[in-house]
Amino acid sequence: MHKTLKEIAQLIEGEIVGDAGVIITGVAGIKEAEAGDITFLANPKYASLLNSTAASAVIISKDTQAPQGKSVIRTENPSLAFAKIISLVLPEQIKYPQGIHPSAVIGKKVTLGKDVSVGPYAVIEDGTEIADKAVIYSGCFIGHDSKIGRQTLIYPNVSIRERSIIGSNVIIHSGTVVGSDGFGFVTVEGKHYKIPQVGIVEIEDDVEIGANVTIDRARFDKTVIGKGTKIDNLVQIAHNVVVGKNCLIVAQVGISGSTILGNNVILAGQVGLVGHISVGDNVIVTAQSGVSKSIAANSIVAGSPARASITQQKVVACSQQLPKFFDLVKDLKKRIEDLEQRLGKDK
Amino acid sequence: MHKTLKEIAQLIEGEIVGDAGVIITGVAGIKEAEAGDITFLANPKYASLLNSTAASAVIISKDTQAPQGKSVIRTENPSLAFAKIISLVLPEQIKYPQGIHPSAVIGKKVTLGKDVSVGPYAVIEDGTEIADKAVIYSGCFIGHDSKIGRQTLIYPNVSIRERSIIGSNVIIHSGTVVGSDGFGFVTVEGKHYKIPQVGIVEIEDDVEIGANVTIDRARFDKTVIGKGTKIDNLVQIAHNVVVGKNCLIVAQVGISGSTILGNNVILAGQVGLVGHISVGDNVIVTAQSGVSKSIAANSIVAGSPARASITQQKVVACSQQLPKFFDLVKDLKKRIEDLEQRLGKDK
Amino acid sequence: MHKTLKEIAQLIEGEIVGDAGVIITGVAGIKEAEAGDITFLANPKYASLLNSTAASAVIISKDTQAPQGKSVIRTENPSLAFAKIISLVLPEQIKYPQGIHPSAVIGKKVTLGKDVSVGPYAVIEDGTEIADKAVIYSGCFIGHDSKIGRQTLIYPNVSIRERSIIGSNVIIHSGTVVGSDGFGFVTVEGKHYKIPQVGIVEIEDDVEIGANVTIDRARFDKTVIGKGTKIDNLVQIAHNVVVGKNCLIVAQVGISGSTILGNNVILAGQVGLVGHISVGDNVIVTAQSGVSKSIAANSIVAGSPARASITQQKVVACSQQLPKFFDLVKDLKKRIEDLEQRLGKDK
Repeated sequence: MHKTLKEIAQLIEGEIVGDAGVIITGVAGIKEAEAGDITFLANPKYASLLNSTAASAVIISKDTQAPQGKSVIRTENPSLAFAKIISLVLPEQIKYPQGIHPSAVIGKKVTLGKDVSVGPYAVIEDGTEIADKAVIYSGCFIGHDSKIGRQTLIYPNVSIRERSIIGSNVIIHSGTVVGSDGFGFVTVEGKHYKIPQVGIVEIEDDVEIGANVTIDRARFDKTVIGKGTKIDNLVQIAHNVVVGKNCLIVAQVGISGSTILGNNVILAGQVGLVGHISVGDNVIVTAQSGVSKSIAANSIVAGSPARASITQQKVVACSQQLPKFFDLVKDLKKRIEDLEQRLGKDK
Repeated sequence: MHKTLKEIAQLIEGEIVGDAGVIITGVAGIKEAEAGDITFLANPKYASLLNSTAASAVIISKDTQAPQGKSVIRTENPSLAFAKIISLVLPEQIKYPQGIHPSAVIGKKVTLGKDVSVGPYAVIEDGTEIADKAVIYSGCFIGHDSKIGRQTLIYPNVSIRERSIIGSNVIIHSGTVVGSDGFGFVTVEGKHYKIPQVGIVEIEDDVEIGANVTIDRARFDKTVIGKGTKIDNLVQIAHNVVVGKNCLIVAQVGISGSTILGNNVILAGQVGLVGHISVGDNVIVTAQSGVSKSIAANSIVAGSPARASITQQKVVACSQQLPKFFDLVKDLKKRIEDLEQRLGKDK
Repeated sequence: MHKTLKEIAQLIEGEIVGDAGVIITGVAGIKEAEAGDITFLANPKYASLLNSTAASAVIISKDTQAPQGKSVIRTENPSLAFAKIISLVLPEQIKYPQGIHPSAVIGKKVTLGKDVSVGPYAVIEDGTEIADKAVIYSGCFIGHDSKIGRQTLIYPNVSIRERSIIGSNVIIHSGTVVGSDGFGFVTVEGKHYKIPQVGIVEIEDDVEIGANVTIDRARFDKTVIGKGTKIDNLVQIAHNVVVGKNCLIVAQVGISGSTILGNNVILAGQVGLVGHISVGDNVIVTAQSGVSKSIAANSIVAGSPARASITQQKVVACSQQLPKFFDLVKDLKKRIEDLEQRLGKDK
């Protein structure tokens, strides 16, 4: 991206206050923005961030005061305007495969929509439906009777097992496995017998899944990733997990079987969740936490086992001081012994 | 699966007490079972579970009392009967590749058994032996001089490096890597020189390995996964590790080099083990624990660093109360100071 | 490797003290060495290790005293001599692909150096440059406009996205993904908008990357892995991370976005680092630690959150004793109450 603020203001039909010639090279959130970025302020309550942001320009609402010495664009709805910039302005520097490569193995009764691209050596088994404008890179495997939604993008060497349902505008990065068998066994006299995993995986629209992620198919029924959820690399989603909408699941998180996440949940890196629990809407779990019980909506939890974040912070602060504290108690013990001696052993 | 209890009773030659028309749609352990499932009770000691299980029917031994209002099948050996149901009754909803796809690259001196299937674009290097009924999906790589056992099933995009030995009835899920080089270097003046990893990996019969697992080849000698062991997704097994028989290794576990596991060991999710230690038979390590020392057989350990689980539970309970406890000690200190003042500074 | 000590001494132009006929079958560090290994002692300060090592022979400097009953080779520079043995003597037991397989898809304007090998069904997109003696195994994907350095070795089913730069003598193990999109979103009213990730990944010379690793491309600019750094399996490197030279990053480590590592940093298994911090040269982070703040050079840190290792050891020792300690404090409380009672409530 390389545009003047003027060009951007025209695109979003906004009014510039400041230097219309500022060059914008990127977009970012107001806290993360760096020089060259344009950002936005949706809520006038956080107007103080206008002074601290490193962004070169900010989109603000008509009733927000423009900060000193910073170029802004005023517009009715800054969030909407910003979303528009993200989706329209930023260039792609990648050339996708075009058309169906002659080496792609397309099974029987496969339905291919308009403008579908399939790279070399991709294998699409019988009975699969691929909607318009989907892109499937080389080396991908799409098992029989699967569905791939419109404009979905699947990078090289992804394996999607049979009967998976993938929505529209989904992105799946390389090496990811969707629909592998859940980890289910019955143990009879020390020997583990496999419980067939005959359910499926359903990925709703607008989901992005990182590289080398694993999402297991359900035992029966389905494992679900809700609309708009974004999953980072190397995440494990076990069988029968249901992830809500617009969640953020950071790298190396593991979610055990049958656990249910609400909407807008954030799981930070390397978090682990046991099976068969519920996590309410808007919950935040901080990095490396281990969640062993259900969590009420809107909570922030931390630690392993996870507790309310505010409690965990106090526990960590205390534990940091434990060695000093042990010394203090030893000193107190001596002083008590001294007092006891002075008062004599008798009552 | 969709059978009446009567049909199942005939299959296992058992006697029904209760409703022979109950529809059974699945199997599960007695604690995990849901409506529609059939389960079993091997040990009459746990007869109380018969009342709490949600299963629609239970297989019990001839000397176990049938519970009120629950359909059961009586049989000589409930475990055996249950295993029979699992292996015989449950349908598969997947269509495997059939035969050798013409695009598969089969090297020189490769031995293919009867009814072997190899998917499109699989690559099988020179000198490999593949036993009867093995199924190798598309995009798999089998390095030279490897052995794949009878009826072993390898899902798409698995990479098995040269000279690996894979037993019979093994299942390997997509994206898994077997036989990559161990992580071994000698550091000379800050520079790391690679120690060649010229050993192999041996996977014994009846092992299941999840998706995107990594199992490194040994430096010399071999890395071993024992018969009947089940490994979940995204697990790391380093060079020269020896895993015993019938272990359960849950997702995202990491086992460092040369560590040895006994039989029937359970490692819960995200556990880490340092290298060069031994873990005895039947040990259970709870989720996210970090094991830094060898563990005696039959222990349950927890925490990082891992301790006896019962100790760890007490430590966690105490740490939870640390902030309150710190306040208590501060109060005690004041009261001691007060006592000291009242008694005077002199002895 | 199977050589007499005499043969090795000739190779490194050293002088034998002891049995020239000892058979050497491997190399290892002095602490890890086993019978059959040759090792070396660079620093005479650690001469005591000469007595405890299990190695069959040791390379020592001319001014180090030869130990009793152990065969040694004296040479000017033991480190250099040892490095020579590692690089020259050890046999490879793997047969690499030879030449360009006719099924490899080579795009337009691809430059292939001398003696390049490309396995079956590899896909090399337009505009890529592959230097002399590089080996690319079957099923690999190399995105457009990438560069692969001289003698670099890429195992099966690796995915390298567009515009990546890979140096010389790099080794990348199977299933690894280089250049996947960084995890970057802007959240507008609960919905996550993708921030395009248009930067690249640059891997410098002599790097080794394990199996199923993920290294994300930068948002702008580049994610960098410094020369000589070695990365184990299942590691996550987020966008815009810069890793210094000669670092060791053990399995299942996760490094969050924009974090910067110095040179010779060691991150043990399952460590997690938050984003936007700096880790100084020679830092060691022990297994499973969670690093939430920048770390000064030459520190050893441990725990989650990570503290100075020595502090963490004390904290762990104290926490182990917490239950006993709680009992002690309860006893002290009683004794104080007793003292207070004896002295009376009045001041």
